[in-house]
Amino acid sequence: MRNKWKLPQLPRRRKKVRRASAPGTAPGTITIDPEAQQPRIIVHAYSNERIENHEMPDLDAAHALVGQYPVVWINIDGLGDEVLLHRARDLFGLHPLAMEDVVNTFQRSKMEPYRNHIFLVVHLLEPTDPTSSEQVSLFLGPGYVLTFQEKPGDCFETVRQRLRRGGRIRTMGADYLAYALLDALVDHYFPILERFEDRLDALEDKAFGAQRPETLRQIQRVKQELLAIRRQVWPVREAVSGLLRDETGLIADETRIFLRDCEDHAVRVIDLLEHHRERGSQLMDLYLSSVSNQMNEIMKTLTIMATIFIPLSFIAGLYGMNFDPKASPWNMPELAWTWGYPFALGVMATVAAGLLVFFRRKGWLGGRRSRPADSPDSGESLDP
Amino acid sequence: MRNKWKLPQLPRRRKKVRRASAPGTAPGTITIDPEAQQPRIIVHAYSNERIENHEMPDLDAAHALVGQYPVVWINIDGLGDEVLLHRARDLFGLHPLAMEDVVNTFQRSKMEPYRNHIFLVVHLLEPTDPTSSEQVSLFLGPGYVLTFQEKPGDCFETVRQRLRRGGRIRTMGADYLAYALLDALVDHYFPILERFEDRLDALEDKAFGAQRPETLRQIQRVKQELLAIRRQVWPVREAVSGLLRDETGLIADETRIFLRDCEDHAVRVIDLLEHHRERGSQLMDLYLSSVSNQMNEIMKTLTIMATIFIPLSFIAGLYGMNFDPKASPWNMPELAWTWGYPFALGVMATVAAGLLVFFRRKGWLGGRRSRPADSPDSGESLDP
Amino acid sequence: MRNKWKLPQLPRRRKKVRRASAPGTAPGTITIDPEAQQPRIIVHAYSNERIENHEMPDLDAAHALVGQYPVVWINIDGLGDEVLLHRARDLFGLHPLAMEDVVNTFQRSKMEPYRNHIFLVVHLLEPTDPTSSEQVSLFLGPGYVLTFQEKPGDCFETVRQRLRRGGRIRTMGADYLAYALLDALVDHYFPILERFEDRLDALEDKAFGAQRPETLRQIQRVKQELLAIRRQVWPVREAVSGLLRDETGLIADETRIFLRDCEDHAVRVIDLLEHHRERGSQLMDLYLSSVSNQMNEIMKTLTIMATIFIPLSFIAGLYGMNFDPKASPWNMPELAWTWGYPFALGVMATVAAGLLVFFRRKGWLGGRRSRPADSPDSGESLDP
Amino acid sequence: MRNKWKLPQLPRRRKKVRRASAPGTAPGTITIDPEAQQPRIIVHAYSNERIENHEMPDLDAAHALVGQYPVVWINIDGLGDEVLLHRARDLFGLHPLAMEDVVNTFQRSKMEPYRNHIFLVVHLLEPTDPTSSEQVSLFLGPGYVLTFQEKPGDCFETVRQRLRRGGRIRTMGADYLAYALLDALVDHYFPILERFEDRLDALEDKAFGAQRPETLRQIQRVKQELLAIRRQVWPVREAVSGLLRDETGLIADETRIFLRDCEDHAVRVIDLLEHHRERGSQLMDLYLSSVSNQMNEIMKTLTIMATIFIPLSFIAGLYGMNFDPKASPWNMPELAWTWGYPFALGVMATVAAGLLVFFRRKGWLGGRRSRPADSPDSGESLDP
Amino acid sequence: MRNKWKLPQLPRRRKKVRRASAPGTAPGTITIDPEAQQPRIIVHAYSNERIENHEMPDLDAAHALVGQYPVVWINIDGLGDEVLLHRARDLFGLHPLAMEDVVNTFQRSKMEPYRNHIFLVVHLLEPTDPTSSEQVSLFLGPGYVLTFQEKPGDCFETVRQRLRRGGRIRTMGADYLAYALLDALVDHYFPILERFEDRLDALEDKAFGAQRPETLRQIQRVKQELLAIRRQVWPVREAVSGLLRDETGLIADETRIFLRDCEDHAVRVIDLLEHHRERGSQLMDLYLSSVSNQMNEIMKTLTIMATIFIPLSFIAGLYGMNFDPKASPWNMPELAWTWGYPFALGVMATVAAGLLVFFRRKGWLGGRRSRPADSPDSGESLDP
Repeated sequence: MRNKWKLPQLPRRRKKVRRASAPGTAPGTITIDPEAQQPRIIVHAYSNERIENHEMPDLDAAHALVGQYPVVWINIDGLGDEVLLHRARDLFGLHPLAMEDVVNTFQRSKMEPYRNHIFLVVHLLEPTDPTSSEQVSLFLGPGYVLTFQEKPGDCFETVRQRLRRGGRIRTMGADYLAYALLDALVDHYFPILERFEDRLDALEDKAFGAQRPETLRQIQRVKQELLAIRRQVWPVREAVSGLLRDETGLIADETRIFLRDCEDHAVRVIDLLEHHRERGSQLMDLYLSSVSNQMNEIMKTLTIMATIFIPLSFIAGLYGMNFDPKASPWNMPELAWTWGYPFALGVMATVAAGLLVFFRRKGWLGGRRSRPADSPDSGESLDP
Repeated sequence: MRNKWKLPQLPRRRKKVRRASAPGTAPGTITIDPEAQQPRIIVHAYSNERIENHEMPDLDAAHALVGQYPVVWINIDGLGDEVLLHRARDLFGLHPLAMEDVVNTFQRSKMEPYRNHIFLVVHLLEPTDPTSSEQVSLFLGPGYVLTFQEKPGDCFETVRQRLRRGGRIRTMGADYLAYALLDALVDHYFPILERFEDRLDALEDKAFGAQRPETLRQIQRVKQELLAIRRQVWPVREAVSGLLRDETGLIADETRIFLRDCEDHAVRVIDLLEHHRERGSQLMDLYLSSVSNQMNEIMKTLTIMATIFIPLSFIAGLYGMNFDPKASPWNMPELAWTWGYPFALGVMATVAAGLLVFFRRKGWLGGRRSRPADSPDSGESLDP
Repeated sequence: MRNKWKLPQLPRRRKKVRRASAPGTAPGTITIDPEAQQPRIIVHAYSNERIENHEMPDLDAAHALVGQYPVVWINIDGLGDEVLLHRARDLFGLHPLAMEDVVNTFQRSKMEPYRNHIFLVVHLLEPTDPTSSEQVSLFLGPGYVLTFQEKPGDCFETVRQRLRRGGRIRTMGADYLAYALLDALVDHYFPILERFEDRLDALEDKAFGAQRPETLRQIQRVKQELLAIRRQVWPVREAVSGLLRDETGLIADETRIFLRDCEDHAVRVIDLLEHHRERGSQLMDLYLSSVSNQMNEIMKTLTIMATIFIPLSFIAGLYGMNFDPKASPWNMPELAWTWGYPFALGVMATVAAGLLVFFRRKGWLGGRRSRPADSPDSGESLDP
Repeated sequence: MRNKWKLPQLPRRRKKVRRASAPGTAPGTITIDPEAQQPRIIVHAYSNERIENHEMPDLDAAHALVGQYPVVWINIDGLGDEVLLHRARDLFGLHPLAMEDVVNTFQRSKMEPYRNHIFLVVHLLEPTDPTSSEQVSLFLGPGYVLTFQEKPGDCFETVRQRLRRGGRIRTMGADYLAYALLDALVDHYFPILERFEDRLDALEDKAFGAQRPETLRQIQRVKQELLAIRRQVWPVREAVSGLLRDETGLIADETRIFLRDCEDHAVRVIDLLEHHRERGSQLMDLYLSSVSNQMNEIMKTLTIMATIFIPLSFIAGLYGMNFDPKASPWNMPELAWTWGYPFALGVMATVAAGLLVFFRRKGWLGGRRSRPADSPDSGESLDP
Repeated sequence: MRNKWKLPQLPRRRKKVRRASAPGTAPGTITIDPEAQQPRIIVHAYSNERIENHEMPDLDAAHALVGQYPVVWINIDGLGDEVLLHRARDLFGLHPLAMEDVVNTFQRSKMEPYRNHIFLVVHLLEPTDPTSSEQVSLFLGPGYVLTFQEKPGDCFETVRQRLRRGGRIRTMGADYLAYALLDALVDHYFPILERFEDRLDALEDKAFGAQRPETLRQIQRVKQELLAIRRQVWPVREAVSGLLRDETGLIADETRIFLRDCEDHAVRVIDLLEHHRERGSQLMDLYLSSVSNQMNEIMKTLTIMATIFIPLSFIAGLYGMNFDPKASPWNMPELAWTWGYPFALGVMATVAAGLLVFFRRKGWLGGRRSRPADSPDSGESLDP
C-alpha cells in the first residue's frame, strides 16, 4: 500500500562532478568522454576592412589564418576527436594541463595565465534547466582566440552579428574579442536569474496560502537550484578579475576598462543571486510559520469545541446514571423535580456561556478578524 | 469558495533588475527606455562673486559656460532623448561605457575613474516607498559636474539654496560640489531608515500581542524592504571610499577631509540599517515564540479541562450502564444503595480535586499570574 | 475587553539617531539642540611642580593658559551656547566638521586626525540605563586637551584625583592626558557589562523554570540592550587603534605603550560583550526548548488520561444502550448475566492495564523521574 | 524494560586525537605507538633511461642510491621500528620536530620548509570509512622523496605505473615526483565525496517520505562524517598552496604550473565538500518540516473527527438523561414526541453538516489533493 | 509548593572578570588581591654542565644568579606580596603596565614586546573544572625567564625533569626555555579537550534516547564550558604567533622552528575546540528533533485512539437515548429489533475497521517498525 506521505520524487539529479580520468593519471592526459560530440570548426578571421567567416574541415587551415588577419577566432563545438585536440595543443603551443581541463568538463570557472596564452573556463547554463551546464574553454593568444564548447548552441550570436556588422570590435585586438565573449557569458546569467524572481514571487503567494507539501518541495527545489548556480557563478567573478589584473601583456589597457565593466556585471550577477538566495531562505521561514499558524488555528478550534462540550457532556452523563430514586431519597432527586430538565439545561447553558466569556477574554475568539480601531497606528502606515 | 487562510497578497513587486539591452549587445550602446521622460537641462554656473541659474534649451549652450565660470553644474532630469545623450558624450568626452550605465538605470552604486572624469552612480530612494529607487549618475570633470536623473524631484534642494546663498561652497571647486551632492545623497537615507524605527517599534508591540497572521506578513515585509535597501546602500559606501582614495587629481586635498566625513555618514547609514535588520530578525523570533507561547497556553487549558472531566464522565457513564440489578446481586448494587448517588458524586469530586492538586504541583495552573515574591531578585533589577 | 495576551509594553525607546541638521545642510554648520545645557568650563593646567584647577567664566581666559603650563585640560560640560562653540573653533583652530560632530551627538565613536589636532568621539553609557549614552568629544592639540560633554557627571573623577595627587601623569604631556581620559572611558564599560552577567545568570534560572512570557520579554530585552551597547563599543576599539597608529606626531612613543594597553582593554570589553551576546542567544534557545519540553509533558499527560479512559467510556456507553433484551435474546444478553457487571468491570480493568503497560514500554511514563542507575556513566562525570 | 525510544546507538567513534607523547615531553622525541606496524622499505630509483624498483632490507642501502640516480623515492610502510626512524633522521638530516610529527600520526595536514628539505603531511581516507584516516608524511630533499605511511596500501599505484611506463615523470626531478604523489592524494578525495552524493540523494527521498527516526540518525551521521572529512581536507589546500609558494629552491618553476593545477583540484574538493555540507543542512530542515507537516495533518484529522462528534455525542447524552417525564411535563417532553428520535437525528445531521462546511471554508479539508487548476501558473514552470 | 518544572540549578558561576583596580586608576598600579597567596621563589639556573635548583628566600639572591649561568628561570608561585612584586619590577626593569597585568589576573592571553623583555600571558585551565583558570605570566629577558603563577601546581613538571636530565634544553638559551614552557602550556589543553569527546559521545546517546530535561541542561552546560574555554584558547594562538614573529632579537632563529611547531599545536587545539563546539550545536539540534519526534509519536497514538473511539462512543450514546418507543413507532425502532444489538456492534466494528484502514494508508500505523525490505538500498550502505 503506497504511503501517500511520500511526495513525488525529485527528478534524478545528474552527477555534478565526473572525472574523465582516474586519480593518479598522468597530468595532461587527454581522455575523451565516449559521449562527447564530433567537433565542428568555425572560424571568424577579420581586420577592420574585411571578415572571413566559414566552417573549416581541419584545424591546420584555420591556424594558417593566424597572422594573415589581425584577429582570428576559432570556435570548436564538440570535444569528441582526440586527434584534433592533440593537434590544437601542438599548433598553438597550448599547455597540456590546460588541454586536460578542456576535456574534463567539470572544472570550476577560472583564469590561468601560461607563458604564451591565457586560459579561461566559464560555464554556460541551460536557460531551461539552470542546474545543467556546458563548459566553455577559451584560449587567448597573440592574434587569436580559440574556444571549445561541448556542443553547438551558445550565447555568442550577438557577438557574431557585431563582428559581421563591423564597428569598434573589428578595430580592436584579440583581447577585446575575448572580452566580448566573456561579457556575453556573464550577461547570459541575467535572464536566467530573472526567471527565478517570478518563481519566488509565485512561491511567496503559495507560502502565505494553504499549506500543501508541494510548496515545501518547490521552495526546496528553488533553493537547490540557486545553490547549484552559485557554484558556477562565484568563480566567474574571480576569473574576470584575474583577467583584469593579468600581467602577461596580452591585455591592452584600453580593453581593461571594458573588463572592469564586465567585472561590474559579474558582481551584479552575484548580488542578484545572493538576493534570491536570501529570499529563498525567507520563503522557507514564511512557509514554516504559515504552517505553524494554521496549526495554531486548528488547535484553537479543537480547544474551544472540546472545552465547551466536555463539561456539558459530563452533566448529561451525570443525569444518565441509573441510580434508583426509589431505593433512596438521596438518589438523584433532581430527576423527579418538576423543573429538573430545564434546570439541567440551564446549568449547561451557564457553563457554556462562562467558557465562551473566558475564551473571549483570552483573545482566542475572533483572532482573525481585522481590528479597525488600531490599524491607523499600525506598522504599515508607510505602505501604499 | 475563498480560502480564508490565504493572506492578502503583497502588492506585485516591480522588477528590480531590468536590462535595457540584450546580453551580447555592443558595450557603450545607448538604448533609450521607451518610458523614459524627456530631459530638462538646469544649469548652475558660479564663481564666488556671481551665480547663473536657469533652465537651458540645449546642452551646447550649457557646455559653453564651462570655463567661463570656475564651476558649472549641469543637471539633466529625464533620460528620454538619445540625441542629447550622444551630444553629452561628445561634448564632455564621456566614456561610452559610463554613458551606457547612465541609461541602464539598474546599476549598483559605484565610482569609476576614467581618463578625464570620474563617474559616480548612487540611488535615490522614494521616501514613501523605499523599495523603489531612482538612479542618479554624476560625472565630475575639470570645472564641471554633470548629473543625470530619471525624473524631476531630488534631494539636492538644500545644495541649491547653499549655492544661491553663497558661502564656502561658492569659493571651492567642482570636486567640492560633487562632494556636497554626494553628501546630500548619503544623508537622505537617514530619514528613510528612521521611519523603519517606528514601524519596528509598532511591530514589536504587535508581536508580543495577539497572534494575527497580518503581523507575520508585516514583519516579513519590513525585512524584505530592508533587504532591498541594503542592496542599494552597501555599495554607496564603497563608492564614497573610492572617491576619497581617488588618484585622478580631480579631488583636492581640502575636499578629501569633507569626503572622509561623508564616508563616516555612509558607515553610519549602514550601521543603522544593519541594526534594523537585526531587530527585524529578533522580531520574527519574538512573533514565533509568542505564537508558540499561546499554543502552549491553549494546550494547557484543553488538558486541564479534558483531563479532569474524562474520568468523571467515565464514572457517570459507568452508572449509566443498564445491567439488570434484578438479574443478579452483583449487577451494580451501588445503584440501589441508599447513599449511592452521593457516593458517586463524592468519588467524582475526589478525582477532580486530586487532578487539580496534581496540575498545581506541575505548575500548570496560574502560570500567567505575576508572582510578586520572586520579582525583587528578577533579572530586571536594572530596568527603570 | 483587554487582551491578556498582550504583554506589558517595553518602555518607549528613545530615538537612537537624531540629526540636528537636515540632510544637505552645509557641512560644518553648528546647530544647537534646543534642549542642550548651558556650558560650564573647568580647567586643569599643570606642570610637574604645580597645578591650577578652577571653573572659568569664559574660554579666552582658559585658552590663555595654554603655553603657560605644559599641559592644559579644558573640560566643557553642556553644548547649549553657540557663541562659545564658535569661539572654541576659532581660538584652537578646530576644523568645522569636527565641531559639527561635537554638537551632533549621535556620531559613531571615531578618531580623526586633522592638521593640527586629533579629534576623538567616545560614548559614555549611563550605568543605570546602558541603552542611553552621552557623547564625549575630545580634541588633542599641542599642549592642550579640550573635552566636550553633553552634561555634567562623567567617569573622569579618578583622573582628576591623579592630577591633583601628582605622579607620572603630571610629568608627561597632553598625549598622556588624552590616553588617561580615553582609558577611563574604555574601563567604564567593564562594570556595566559585569551587571549583565548577573542578569543573564538570573534569566538562566528562569529559563529553566516555569515558562512565563515575562521571561521571554526579559531575555529579549537583554539581547536588545546588548545589541545597543555593541553599536557603541565596537567603534571605540577602532578609535583607540587609530590613535595608537596615529602619524600626526602628537603622540609620543612612550605614550604609545600605554595606548597599546588601552587597546588591549578595548579588546577585552568587546570580548566580554560578545560572550554575553552568545549567552543571550543560548538563553533564548534554552527558554524555547524549555517551553517545548513542558508542552511535551502536557501532551503526554493528556494522552495517557484520554487514551486510557476513551475505551473505558466506550464500554460503559455500550452497556448504557437501551436495546430491549425482551425483544430478542441477542439484545445485550450480558445485561442479564449473573456476573455481567463484574465482567464489564474486568474488561475495563484489563484494557486500562494493557494501555498502561504499552505506555510504560514506550517510556512515556516516569520520564521525569531521576534514574540513579545510569547516572554514574552520565555525561557529567567531570562536573563537581 | 527497554526503552524503545532509544535509537540504535552509533558505533563507538574512534578517538580522533591521540597523542603519543605526554604534554611537556622534549620536542623531537620519537615515541613508537605499540600498535604500529613493522616497516617495509620499497625503493624506486630512476633516471630517464632506467628504473630500479625493489624492496630493501635496510635504509642505508636505499640511501646509498641517492646521487646515483637523479631521483630516488623511498617509501616506508609501517612506523613500528624506532631504530629505523632514528637512522632515517640521521642519514637524510631530517629535523627532529618533523620526525616527531611522522610518528605522532594525528597532525593536521601541513607543509613545513626546513633548511634542506620540505616536510609535508596529508591524510589518506579509508574509502569504505571516510572518518578513519591514515597519515602520509613526505620529505622532499635534493634528489630524493621519502614517504612514511602507517600501513601498506595507498593511492600511489597509478604513480608507480607511470614511473615504470616512463614518460614525462621520468625526465623530471624529485619535486615533480612529490607533486605527482600529492596530486594522487588530493584526487583520492573525489571518489569518496562522490559516494556522499548518492547517500544524500537517498536520504532526500527518505526525508520527503515517512518520518522514521532512523532517517534523522542517518542524516546526522552523514553530517558528522562530512564534518570529520572537512577537518582533514581544508588544511590540505593550505599545504598545497604553501608548496606552490615555497622559497627553498627545491621546487622548479616548471613544476609550479603543475602544483597550481593541484591547488585547483584541492579547491574543487573543498567546493564539493561544502556543497555536500550545505545539502546536509537542507536535508535536516527538510526532514524536520516533513515531520511538522505530518503532525499538522494528524492534528487536522483529530480536530475534524473530534469537533464533529463532540456536539453529536453531547446531544445523544442529553437524551440519555433519566429525567422522569412522569414527574413533570417539563422533563424532556421530546422523548415522548412522535417525531422525537428523527428530530434528534436531524439536529445531529445539521450540526455535523454545518461543521463540515466550516472546515471546508477554512481549507482544512482536501488540503492534500492536487489542484490542477492553479498548477499552470505554479512556480515550477521551469521544471521539466 | 515547589515547582517541579524548575530544573536543578547550575552551580553559581564564578565571576569571569574581576578587576583589581577601579576604572581610572593610574596605569601600572600594583593592587594586591587580598585573597592572593604568599609567594614562593623557585630557581633553576643552568648551563650545559651543571644545574642549580632550589627555593630561594628572596628575589635579590635569585637575580644575582643571572649572568652567572647562561639561563636562569625564576618561578614565583603566589602574588600576595606587594614588596616582592615591586622589587621584581625594579631588579629586572619590567614595565609597570606588564606588572599591573601580572596581578590583574583576568587578562586575555597575549604577547607584548617591551624594550628589554617580552611579556607573555597564558591561562592554565583546571583539568577538573575547565571553566576556572589560573593566569601564568612569563617575562623573557636576556639570560632569564621569570614566571608568575597564582598558586603552586602547574604543567611544567616535565620541563623541570628535562632540565634536570639534561639534553638539548640545557644547551640552548632562555628563549628555548620560554618556548618549552609555552609548549607545555599549549599542550595541556589537549587532555582537557579530549575529555569533552567522551562527554559529547555520552550526550549523543542520551539525545537519541528518552527526552529528559537533564539532557538539555547537560548539553547546554557542555556548550557553555566550551564557550568559556574558547575565550581562553583563541588568544593563545595569537600570542604564540606574536612570539614567532617577534623582532626584539630575544628569539634565536633556531628557536623559531620550535615556536612554529608550537603554533601548529595551538592551531590544532583550536581546531579540536571548534570541532567540539560544532558537535555541541548538532547535539542540541538532535535533542530537539528527538523531542519533536516523540511528540509526534504521542500525537499519533492519541489520534488513533481518539479518532477510532469517538464515533463508536457516539453510536453507543445514540442508542442510550431514552426516546420512548411506545410513544411513536419512529422512536428508535432499532432497539426492539431482533438483531438490533448485533447490528449496532457490527456498525461499530465497520467504522473502526474503516478508520484503521484509513490510518494505515496514511502511513500513521507501524511507522516505527523497522522495514527490512528497503534497508539494503538505504543511505547507509557505506557504514560498517
